[in-house]
Amino acid sequence: MAWHIARAMDMAGHKIAQVYSRDLKDAQDLAHPYLADALDDIRMLKDDAEVTFICVSDSVIKEVAGHLLQPKNLVVHTSGAISIDVLKDVSPYYGVFYPVQTLSAGKPVNFFEVPVCIEGSNNVAEQQLKALADTVSNQVQYLDSEKRRHLHLAAVFANNFTNALYQEAAEILEIQGMNFNLLRPLIKETAEKVQRLSPREAQTGPARRGDHETIRKHLELLPEGHRKALYQLLTDIISKG
Amino acid sequence: MAWHIARAMDMAGHKIAQVYSRDLKDAQDLAHPYLADALDDIRMLKDDAEVTFICVSDSVIKEVAGHLLQPKNLVVHTSGAISIDVLKDVSPYYGVFYPVQTLSAGKPVNFFEVPVCIEGSNNVAEQQLKALADTVSNQVQYLDSEKRRHLHLAAVFANNFTNALYQEAAEILEIQGMNFNLLRPLIKETAEKVQRLSPREAQTGPARRGDHETIRKHLELLPEGHRKALYQLLTDIISKG
Repeated sequence: MAWHIARAMDMAGHKIAQVYSRDLKDAQDLAHPYLADALDDIRMLKDDAEVTFICVSDSVIKEVAGHLLQPKNLVVHTSGAISIDVLKDVSPYYGVFYPVQTLSAGKPVNFFEVPVCIEGSNNVAEQQLKALADTVSNQVQYLDSEKRRHLHLAAVFANNFTNALYQEAAEILEIQGMNFNLLRPLIKETAEKVQRLSPREAQTGPARRGDHETIRKHLELLPEGHRKALYQLLTDIISKG
Repeated sequence: MAWHIARAMDMAGHKIAQVYSRDLKDAQDLAHPYLADALDDIRMLKDDAEVTFICVSDSVIKEVAGHLLQPKNLVVHTSGAISIDVLKDVSPYYGVFYPVQTLSAGKPVNFFEVPVCIEGSNNVAEQQLKALADTVSNQVQYLDSEKRRHLHLAAVFANNFTNALYQEAAEILEIQGMNFNLLRPLIKETAEKVQRLSPREAQTGPARRGDHETIRKHLELLPEGHRKALYQLLTDIISKG
């Protein structure tokens, strides 16, 4: 997350001033390309940054933010699942900057196409955050913490659970000595289809068309276990949909 | 399926000679751009075609093929789920030509990138089918009916079930008044990621990292019902994976 935000901010012309990490090497790796200061002591962070991004695991946001020495300016976290309130004792101005994308360090994405959901502790914070976010993304919108929790849950279905289905498919092939390459174009096209259509319009397959004979034959192929349970549950969901 | 195969064959320089459909208008629509004959009486099909493609619902392949009047040349079906044997009484030469892709009439795909799995009733049929398939796809491979059944099952996970998860995500957003556009870039990137990585390598999220607190909070958001059951099942599967 830090890698992507630093890259997007730099490309938009903002100055990356300081990078803190528990691990000095990590801080240096991130700071180096931007000629920023690298720190492994959070108390050394200067408080003149316009915005401080806290890009850490959900469970330690509160703790890390609590170590900031009386920041006067905007402090934001980047988590989908955590309320804005976790920062309420940290600064007079705080907020959330949540990019809705799966981000891997070192693999650039076109950040302008990444939806960024923002929330501010007050109008001043929110306007500052909106102006900043607009410089890096074309898809900025306000979203309160309650809605963001639901969005994060939906993202788990669209990303983590979808990938788990890819894995189930890969294992079915693997058992039969087939290569996952057979499914890669299908997976890509399945995601492409809902870029224009709604998932409801895009739904096809035996469950959708009520093809009980194919469903019966598929269930015959699946041994008792989690994969069969998943097949049955998803078939029920599509049939009733 | 017929629309895509006709288009791919035509682009590769093959002549589309005749199109049969129960509905004459459908036959004419498909035949017209290729100056092919359109028929709604299957007994009028001339038997001099090098290959006859049967692109119909699984449940009527046998019946439709049975109406062909003693074809001397290759007859193939295009189904992932149906055995080659369904054609054994139809012609001395028969086979299967199964493109592993989700195909919508009128929406062209780059057929050269579509994996095509072929099977022939004997060496002559198989070689003819391989030579033909190689003119339209760069991803042709032999696959027997048993393996093809498993591939078709895996494709249901990778395509139909994946789309059902998109639908679950869309409904979570809809209930909260959020737009599905928020998830479209994430869905695209999730599919992109496994074009190079294996799904196992690409897996992220609360279940993968054992983040019980986030899982607990997600479960709180979900009312009792199929969606919660799906969340729990997929979380278990990822946790154990």
